[in-house]
Amino acid sequence: MARLSLNQATVKRATVAEAVEGCVRHGIESIGLWREPVADHGLERTAKLVADAGLRVSSLCRGGFLTATDNRAALDDNRRAIDEAAALRTGTLVMVVGGVQGDKDLVGARHRVADAIAELSGYAAQAGVVLALEPMHPVFCADRGVLSTLSQALDLAERLPSVGVVVDALHVWWDPDLDAQIVRAGPHIASYQVCDWLTPVPADVLLGRGYPGDGDIDLVRLTRQVAATGYAGDVEVEIFNAAIWAAGFDEVIGEVARRYREIVEPVL
Amino acid sequence: MARLSLNQATVKRATVAEAVEGCVRHGIESIGLWREPVADHGLERTAKLVADAGLRVSSLCRGGFLTATDNRAALDDNRRAIDEAAALRTGTLVMVVGGVQGDKDLVGARHRVADAIAELSGYAAQAGVVLALEPMHPVFCADRGVLSTLSQALDLAERLPSVGVVVDALHVWWDPDLDAQIVRAGPHIASYQVCDWLTPVPADVLLGRGYPGDGDIDLVRLTRQVAATGYAGDVEVEIFNAAIWAAGFDEVIGEVARRYREIVEPVL
Repeated sequence: MARLSLNQATVKRATVAEAVEGCVRHGIESIGLWREPVADHGLERTAKLVADAGLRVSSLCRGGFLTATDNRAALDDNRRAIDEAAALRTGTLVMVVGGVQGDKDLVGARHRVADAIAELSGYAAQAGVVLALEPMHPVFCADRGVLSTLSQALDLAERLPSVGVVVDALHVWWDPDLDAQIVRAGPHIASYQVCDWLTPVPADVLLGRGYPGDGDIDLVRLTRQVAATGYAGDVEVEIFNAAIWAAGFDEVIGEVARRYREIVEPVL
Repeated sequence: MARLSLNQATVKRATVAEAVEGCVRHGIESIGLWREPVADHGLERTAKLVADAGLRVSSLCRGGFLTATDNRAALDDNRRAIDEAAALRTGTLVMVVGGVQGDKDLVGARHRVADAIAELSGYAAQAGVVLALEPMHPVFCADRGVLSTLSQALDLAERLPSVGVVVDALHVWWDPDLDAQIVRAGPHIASYQVCDWLTPVPADVLLGRGYPGDGDIDLVRLTRQVAATGYAGDVEVEIFNAAIWAAGFDEVIGEVARRYREIVEPVL
């Protein structure tokens, strides 16, 4: 399981210490952290905790939310997020770029994202951090992420230093152009995340994620394609799901490891 | 309001007779019908009712659901739907092509759709009916429609006789390639449908539609683009929304007409 990473959001109620302990207990060598629980535990303390446990930090979630017409405060916050990623010794800051801002101007919002990422990329490069742009499933276009396809994210990653992309199965699986865009993404993939798409979509669409294997995504095919690009980084399991959040951490982390070994690892 | 069409699903609880009466009362000259209420009223009786009221039938909803590995029964049902469209004197059968079939084989499902549409297109041409392929928002890829973009639908419409596309604002608004695909769609647009995307998405994602103007879609921009292609057909207002379904038909139809006059008609 050398490349499995537990994204902390999968055990949302766990503290940083509990998540780290769970990884160690289950032989998981890498963790994806979130800013809020890291702040709760303390940035330097978290860096030490993770290092002492022998874990890698596969990514920090998350920067972004850059679509406001006045995004100066957001840019400052993103610089802090870059510093935090560097302090945690991860080279990957996941970026959820923000949605339409109530003015119906999707085209304008996308331009503001491109400008903001360009502005942040120099700072990120100096810090040794890649801004990992996460294309979001179009169901989140209005409120979370106006980058809707891998193609859009790659248009930025190809022309800016220290900018990469996240391939999150849930966000990209439906894309008719996925095969070609995964090939194109190869050198720019900063993070590969897996979970599954559940049908019917639950009452809160944000929580429509299941364990790998429980939904409609062909994760074997996708993982094989990502591996074929030469991507050699961690594979994060990131699941937002009310029932999984309500379950015991140990049970959840064990199931994550089991699904990874069963579905993902054989085709890496 | 010469080009406004009331899609019957907007007043889901209304019978065909009630929907037709509402159109006449509000000066709406066209209606989009659904197969089930038409069957309830009787096919020939509906054709006569609509003709006597002086209404056009802008479309019949819906054929499709062709992704099963054995789709012979579905093909038969689609031939009946084509016959029904012809009997109702509409040239447009809206096609919702079907989702992934539980086997995670999205690529295979898309191939089956292409084959099935090719098989049906000759029959449709003979009946004088256009199969109007409706790209569905990717949130419906698993359970309703594996055609996720206008580009995919156009790949079929461009090479098959009697095959066109539906531009439904709700399904296409997020697409980063929308501007170019609308231009490409020009001669193939068989139906233009409007409603709005509501945020947050309600508990049933199918019902996340609002009156034009109430959500995040720039319908003025989109309508202008559709009009610029030379599209001269009807504009259907199709809204799935629990609160709108619970309201009185007269109130709803009046509001549909008001929004159309306010937002759509000025830019047609």
